[in-house]
Amino acid sequence: MAENYFIEDCEKLETLAPITGAPIERHVFVCTGKSCSAVESAEVKSAFERELISRKLLFGKKKKGKNPAGSIVLTECGSVGFCAVGAAVMVYPDGIWYAQVRPGDVAEIVEEHLLNGRVVERLALLKIPSQGKIPASNADQQQWEA
Amino acid sequence: MAENYFIEDCEKLETLAPITGAPIERHVFVCTGKSCSAVESAEVKSAFERELISRKLLFGKKKKGKNPAGSIVLTECGSVGFCAVGAAVMVYPDGIWYAQVRPGDVAEIVEEHLLNGRVVERLALLKIPSQGKIPASNADQQQWEA
Repeated sequence: MAENYFIEDCEKLETLAPITGAPIERHVFVCTGKSCSAVESAEVKSAFERELISRKLLFGKKKKGKNPAGSIVLTECGSVGFCAVGAAVMVYPDGIWYAQVRPGDVAEIVEEHLLNGRVVERLALLKIPSQGKIPASNADQQQWEA
Repeated sequence: MAENYFIEDCEKLETLAPITGAPIERHVFVCTGKSCSAVESAEVKSAFERELISRKLLFGKKKKGKNPAGSIVLTECGSVGFCAVGAAVMVYPDGIWYAQVRPGDVAEIVEEHLLNGRVVERLALLKIPSQGKIPASNADQQQWEA
């Protein structure tokens, strides 16, 4: 692709990026930076993949076992500043940052948050936009509303 | 860190993850997957870093030239399905996915979207949550409201 080549045709763009035609509801990021990797973030991401595929929620190509009409995108990402409290998992557009996530926590996040819209409070540490204050451990549900 | 070690103390968590005390407004992801890298996504990320640092918006450590009270987090990420229309840049919690972003577009995204809340429509290709339809090229502003 030449550097200045710019596609304006919407149908062409949809063909090139089928995700634009999918009913995406949420985007889940799993940090695979150095510190998070040291506490099993690759396994956390694999657990999300397995759990979301088994529920037909994971957007992606059919030949990879995913669903072209899935509602969740799963992506790995670099360090987000949760290095000492990883593995970090972010759920957008909700803006919920989970800390200290282990593979065994993934089914609960999928079931509670991604399916039922209820934030898993025991793991949620930050909500963006943030007022710059950490919530008390007994933060009310409104704070974490998905 | 032992696998089952779990920190519950909020003050300790805030010390370990200073980002929880910062007034974060937006999280910008730049895809550095293979296809996006081939169209200068590393340079796009560097351009965001320069632009955000010069405006004191980029959250991070002071010794790295960033701002511990910055309002923007910048993170690289893996492929998101915009491989043929990269470089992909996502702005959350707004849920705006920009396509075909070049380093020369970054100042406009920072000025218009991150500072003034106006989506750069000529580059915006997807808004999450999505209804599964690509917007017409003359999509009204409401579609892209940040």
